[in-house]
Amino acid sequence: MIVILKPNPDPVQAENLIEWIKGFGLDIHTSQGSTHTILGLVGDTTVIDIDLIRAMDIVEDVRRVQEPYKFANRKMHPQDTVVELENGTKIGGGHFAIMAGPCSVESEEQICLVAERVKAAGAKLLRGGAFKPRTSPYSFQGLEDEGIRLLLEAKRHTGLPIVTEIMELSQLDLFADVDVIQVGARNMQNFSLLKELGRTNKPILLKRGLANTLQEWLMSAEYVLAGGNEQVILCERGIRTFETATRNTLDLSAIPMIHHMSHLPVIVDPSHATGIAWMVKPMALGAVAVGADGLMVEVHNDPPRAKCDGAQSLTPDAFDDLTASLAAIRPGLLDE
Amino acid sequence: MIVILKPNPDPVQAENLIEWIKGFGLDIHTSQGSTHTILGLVGDTTVIDIDLIRAMDIVEDVRRVQEPYKFANRKMHPQDTVVELENGTKIGGGHFAIMAGPCSVESEEQICLVAERVKAAGAKLLRGGAFKPRTSPYSFQGLEDEGIRLLLEAKRHTGLPIVTEIMELSQLDLFADVDVIQVGARNMQNFSLLKELGRTNKPILLKRGLANTLQEWLMSAEYVLAGGNEQVILCERGIRTFETATRNTLDLSAIPMIHHMSHLPVIVDPSHATGIAWMVKPMALGAVAVGADGLMVEVHNDPPRAKCDGAQSLTPDAFDDLTASLAAIRPGLLDE
Amino acid sequence: MIVILKPNPDPVQAENLIEWIKGFGLDIHTSQGSTHTILGLVGDTTVIDIDLIRAMDIVEDVRRVQEPYKFANRKMHPQDTVVELENGTKIGGGHFAIMAGPCSVESEEQICLVAERVKAAGAKLLRGGAFKPRTSPYSFQGLEDEGIRLLLEAKRHTGLPIVTEIMELSQLDLFADVDVIQVGARNMQNFSLLKELGRTNKPILLKRGLANTLQEWLMSAEYVLAGGNEQVILCERGIRTFETATRNTLDLSAIPMIHHMSHLPVIVDPSHATGIAWMVKPMALGAVAVGADGLMVEVHNDPPRAKCDGAQSLTPDAFDDLTASLAAIRPGLLDE
Amino acid sequence: MIVILKPNPDPVQAENLIEWIKGFGLDIHTSQGSTHTILGLVGDTTVIDIDLIRAMDIVEDVRRVQEPYKFANRKMHPQDTVVELENGTKIGGGHFAIMAGPCSVESEEQICLVAERVKAAGAKLLRGGAFKPRTSPYSFQGLEDEGIRLLLEAKRHTGLPIVTEIMELSQLDLFADVDVIQVGARNMQNFSLLKELGRTNKPILLKRGLANTLQEWLMSAEYVLAGGNEQVILCERGIRTFETATRNTLDLSAIPMIHHMSHLPVIVDPSHATGIAWMVKPMALGAVAVGADGLMVEVHNDPPRAKCDGAQSLTPDAFDDLTASLAAIRPGLLDE
Repeated sequence: MIVILKPNPDPVQAENLIEWIKGFGLDIHTSQGSTHTILGLVGDTTVIDIDLIRAMDIVEDVRRVQEPYKFANRKMHPQDTVVELENGTKIGGGHFAIMAGPCSVESEEQICLVAERVKAAGAKLLRGGAFKPRTSPYSFQGLEDEGIRLLLEAKRHTGLPIVTEIMELSQLDLFADVDVIQVGARNMQNFSLLKELGRTNKPILLKRGLANTLQEWLMSAEYVLAGGNEQVILCERGIRTFETATRNTLDLSAIPMIHHMSHLPVIVDPSHATGIAWMVKPMALGAVAVGADGLMVEVHNDPPRAKCDGAQSLTPDAFDDLTASLAAIRPGLLDE
Repeated sequence: MIVILKPNPDPVQAENLIEWIKGFGLDIHTSQGSTHTILGLVGDTTVIDIDLIRAMDIVEDVRRVQEPYKFANRKMHPQDTVVELENGTKIGGGHFAIMAGPCSVESEEQICLVAERVKAAGAKLLRGGAFKPRTSPYSFQGLEDEGIRLLLEAKRHTGLPIVTEIMELSQLDLFADVDVIQVGARNMQNFSLLKELGRTNKPILLKRGLANTLQEWLMSAEYVLAGGNEQVILCERGIRTFETATRNTLDLSAIPMIHHMSHLPVIVDPSHATGIAWMVKPMALGAVAVGADGLMVEVHNDPPRAKCDGAQSLTPDAFDDLTASLAAIRPGLLDE
Repeated sequence: MIVILKPNPDPVQAENLIEWIKGFGLDIHTSQGSTHTILGLVGDTTVIDIDLIRAMDIVEDVRRVQEPYKFANRKMHPQDTVVELENGTKIGGGHFAIMAGPCSVESEEQICLVAERVKAAGAKLLRGGAFKPRTSPYSFQGLEDEGIRLLLEAKRHTGLPIVTEIMELSQLDLFADVDVIQVGARNMQNFSLLKELGRTNKPILLKRGLANTLQEWLMSAEYVLAGGNEQVILCERGIRTFETATRNTLDLSAIPMIHHMSHLPVIVDPSHATGIAWMVKPMALGAVAVGADGLMVEVHNDPPRAKCDGAQSLTPDAFDDLTASLAAIRPGLLDE
Repeated sequence: MIVILKPNPDPVQAENLIEWIKGFGLDIHTSQGSTHTILGLVGDTTVIDIDLIRAMDIVEDVRRVQEPYKFANRKMHPQDTVVELENGTKIGGGHFAIMAGPCSVESEEQICLVAERVKAAGAKLLRGGAFKPRTSPYSFQGLEDEGIRLLLEAKRHTGLPIVTEIMELSQLDLFADVDVIQVGARNMQNFSLLKELGRTNKPILLKRGLANTLQEWLMSAEYVLAGGNEQVILCERGIRTFETATRNTLDLSAIPMIHHMSHLPVIVDPSHATGIAWMVKPMALGAVAVGADGLMVEVHNDPPRAKCDGAQSLTPDAFDDLTASLAAIRPGLLDE
C-alpha cells in the first residue's frame, strides 16, 4: 500500500500515522519526493482500512498495490482451479459444464422428466430450486425440504449431480447429499453464511450480486476460501443498470476479467440475466465465446405453467436446440 | 391488473390464458377495443407472476393497477405508522428521532462515553454494531455477543434505547433486550431473516439495499408486516451509481416518495451514504428538509482509531454542532 | 395507447381529458371495467406526451401499446436493412464488416501503414478520428481538417472506405468524401446534428450513449430516418455502470434485442467498451457469437506512443490474430 | 502524478517510459521502495493520458495527485466565484437566485403571464425553452427564433433577466441579448459548443449530464473557463440510476462536494430530476438545506396543456407556496 502525504504535513500527525501503521505489524519505507512524502507499507496490508487512511487530514491519497484478496488471487495461485464433483464431473481449467433444470422443483414427475431431457441434451448437472428467494411474500416460496428430496430422487434416477440454493445456515443439514451448494445473488454478501460454507467440503456456486463489483465478488469468494474450502465456482447472472429492455444487464466482460484476476472457474446464467426465453440462446453462445467455464440454464417442461420464472425458461426442445448450437460452434464442447 | 392482448390473438391460446387466470380465483372483465382485446383482472392479483404473463405469445403488454404490496401500502392504511419504543420514544407521524453511536462497539468505556455524549446532544437512540458485515474476511468482524452485552450496559447507564444489526437468525436470542433490530442493506432481501423477524414483536429498522428500488424495499417490509409485525422503520443509506466521489449516492427523493407510497416512517443515514465525515452535516440538514422521520449518524470518540468506518464518523463535538444546526433550522425538532 | 382512469373519476376532468386527446386527432374507444374505466387511443399516438397524461389527477396509469419509433421499428419494416457503401461493401442482413484503425489520425505514414495492415487482415473499412471529443481541454483534440485529408489519402492508397466522427454541423462540408459519418456516444442525443444528418445521403454510424436505453437509441436513429436517410448503422460501445474494472460495461444483450426491436444493423466496439487491449479479442468473439453485424476495433502501429486511447489499441499483429480467430470460429465470416 | 512500477521491471522498458514522460516537459523523481519503484512526475501532468500509462507492461498502478482541472479547481481559486448579471443579480458566494418559468415558450401571453407571476413570487431570472431537445422527433421542438423573441419581450415587460438553452453553435447570434446561456444535460460533453462558449462573455449555465461524474462535469466547465469565460454556473438535475419511481435520481450530495472541489456556484433543478410536480417542493427545500446557490423550477400557467413537461410543472400558485416555504425555513433567502 502506498500512502501519499500532502505537501508539508504536520509532523506530529505524520508521526502518529506512522506509529498507527506500525501497530498493525507493518514496515514502512519512506520516500521523499519533490513535493510529496510517500509511505510504502510492507507486509500484510489486507488488515488496513483504506478509507480511514484516506480520510486523514495529512493524507493526499492512498493506493493499494496488492489486491485485498489473497486466496482468490491468480497472482498467488497461477493455475486454474478445477472443481471436481463426486461423480468425476469437472468444471474449470478447460472443463465445461452445463447446469440445467427448472427454476423450482414442483413435483417428482416434473423434475425427473426435465432431468432426463437435459441429461440427454448434454447437461452435466441438474439445477432446481427447493428454497426460493422471492421478492414478494405472496409468491411461491418453493417446496423446501420436499424439494431437496425430489432433487435427490432425480439424481438417483439419472445419475446427474445436483445444484440447489441454500437460503440460510439452518438449512445446511438438508444439503448433505447435494453436490453443489448455490449461494444466490441476494446472499452474495451474507457473510455469516459464507463463513459457514467455508467450513464445509462442498463445492459452492457463488452468484454475483446485482450491484457488486468484481472485486467485491472475489472478496465474498475469499470468505469461503479463507475458511478452507477451495471449491468455489463463480456465476455471472446480470447486473442492475438503467436499462429496462432486459431484466438485468449480462456483463460478459466479467468472464475474461475474472479469469485475469482469479484462478476460479466462472460460469454464466443467461436465463436470469435476460429474463426472456428467446434471449437465452444468443447470450449462451456469447458466454461460450468469451470463455465461460459453463452455463446455468433454466429448462421447464411447461413454461407457461411454471411456478416461477416461466418467462425465461426454455422448453426441453429449445434446450436441445441450444446445446446443438453450442456444439456446432465448438465441436466437443459438451465433452470437455 | 390489465392484460392487453395482441391484435387477432389465437383463440385457443386466449382461452387457455383466461382459464389459467381463473385458476387463481380471479375474475376477468373483457373489453374489446378497436384493435386490442383488454382483460381486466379482478381480485387479489398479488399472486400472479406478471413476467410470466408478459412472456406469453398472445400478450402485447400487462400492467399492474394495484401495487404488489398490501400492508405497506398507504392506500390501505392512510395514517402514518408511529413506531413506539418501550421507553415511550416515538418515530414517524411527526415524531423525529436521531440514532447515533459508533460503527462498532469496541469497549465499555467507548460505548458508554459515546452514549453519554450523543444523549446530551439530543439523540434518542444509541446505535452500535456488535455483528459487523464486512466486505473483507480480514476486517474486524465485531465483538459479537460481547458487543450486545456492552450495548445493554450503555443502555442501563444512559437510559437510551439501543439499535443494533442482526446478521442471521441464530443470533435472534441475543436480541431479547435490544430495542430496535436493524437489518442491514446487504440483508434487505434475506427473506428467511425477514420472515422470522415478522414473527417477533420488536421494531425493525430495514435499510435499503444498494441496488434496490423503492418497490422492492416495500416488498421486503411487506415480508415483516405480513408476518404480523407492524413496526417497521425504513432507512435510506445511499444507492450504488456510477459516481465515485461519494461512497454511495444518497437518494433523498426516496423520502417524499416513500411517504407517498407507504405509511411507514423513513429515516436517513448520511454517514454510510457519503462515507465522508464532513459531508454528514449538510446531508443531514437536507434529510430533515425533505421530511425524513429521523437520522442515523455514526459518532466515535476517536475516529482515527475506530475499528471500522472511521472515515465517516463524527467526533462527539461535531455531533453537538450537527444537532445544534438541526435545531436552528427547525426549532423543537429534537423534541418532536 | 391505453389510459387507465382511477375508480370514480371526476366527470368534468374525464371529459376534459377526452377532449384534449381528441384535439390531437385521435379516436378514443372507452371500455368500462368493474372498477376502472379504460380509454383506448387510436391513431398516431407518437405525438402524445405520456408523462403528462400519467401526471393527471384522474389517471391511474397509462401504457403505450405502440412503440414511439416508427421508421426504426421492425414491425413496420420486417426485413433487415442492408447498408451499402459506394464500393459495394454491405453491412447488415447477413453481411458482416470490420471497421479498424487508430483512435486518431496522426500522420500520413501512420494512417497509411495502419490502413494497409487492417485491410490485409480482413477489415472492410478504415476508421480514424480527425475531430476528437476529449474529456479534457488539455488532451490532443485531433488533426481536424488535416485529419480528414489524411484519411482520404489512405482511402486512395488502399481502396478502403472510411468512417470518421463528426462533432458539429459546421464540419459537414468536410465529410463530402467520407463514406460513413460517425456520431459519437456523447452526441447520441445532439438532436440538431441528427436532424441535419437525416437530410444527407451518407450512411450514419450512431453510437449508443453511455447512459441511454435501447429505446432512446432507436429514437435517435428515428431522427435520422424521419429526415429521409435510411442508412443508419447502430454501434454498441459499452454503457456506464457501477463497475470500474472495465472502463464501461459492454452490453452484448443489446445486440439480439435491437435485432428484435429494429431492422437496422448493429455493430460492436469492444475497444472503447473495455478500455483494455487484451480484452478486445474475447469481447469481439462474444460480439460475433451474439449476432453483431460488424465490429469497430482500434488498431495502432505503436500503441504506447498513440496520441489517444493507446491503452485499448491493438497492434497490427494482434489485429491479425483477432481476425484469424474470428474466421476460425465462423469460417467465411470476413467474406460475408 | 505517481507511477508505481511492478517489481523488477524490465530496465529497457523503464528507460523508455522515463524518456517518454520527459518528452512532455515533466521532471521525474524516482524513489526506490522495498519492492516497488515509484516515479513522482513533477510539472503540468494534465497533458498525460493516465490510462495509457496504466496499460503499460511494467506499470503496476498510476495515481493522479493533482486533479486534471485547473481553472475550476478550488485549490487554485479558493474564493467562491460570484456570477453577476447585467442587472446586478448575483449568483454564488452567498447570493441565492431562483430561475423559474415554463419548459417551453408557447406564446407572448403565456410567457409574460408566467414571468410576472414568478417575479412576484421572488424569482430573479425567467427561464423558458426556445430550442427544445426532445427524445422524440415527433414531439414539439420549440418555437425557436420566435421563442427567443418572446422571451426578450417578457424581459422588457418584467425586467427579469432570461436564461434559455442553446442547442448548437449556429444559434449563437440569436443569444446576443440573452442573460444566461444554458447548456443542457445532453450537451454537457458537446466540446465544440463548450469551446465556443468559452470565447463569449456570457454567463453559462452548465447542466450535469445524466451519467457524468462530478469530475467530468468540472472538466466540461474547464473547457469554458480555459477559453477565458469565467462565468460558469453548474446545475444538478438528476442522474440516471436503476430507480424508476422518479424520472432521475437527484444527487443532492453533489452540492457540498462540488463546493469542496470547485469555487463555481451550483444550483439545483428539482423539476427535471423528479419529473413529478408534487416532488418539486420537498426537493427544493432539500437543495437549499444542503447549500445550493439557487434553483431552477418549471412553472406553467396551465400544466395540463403545456407543450412539454407538464407533468413536472408547478402552477403559479404552487410556486408562490414554494417560495413562501423557502423563506420560512431561511428568512431572507430570496433577498440574498
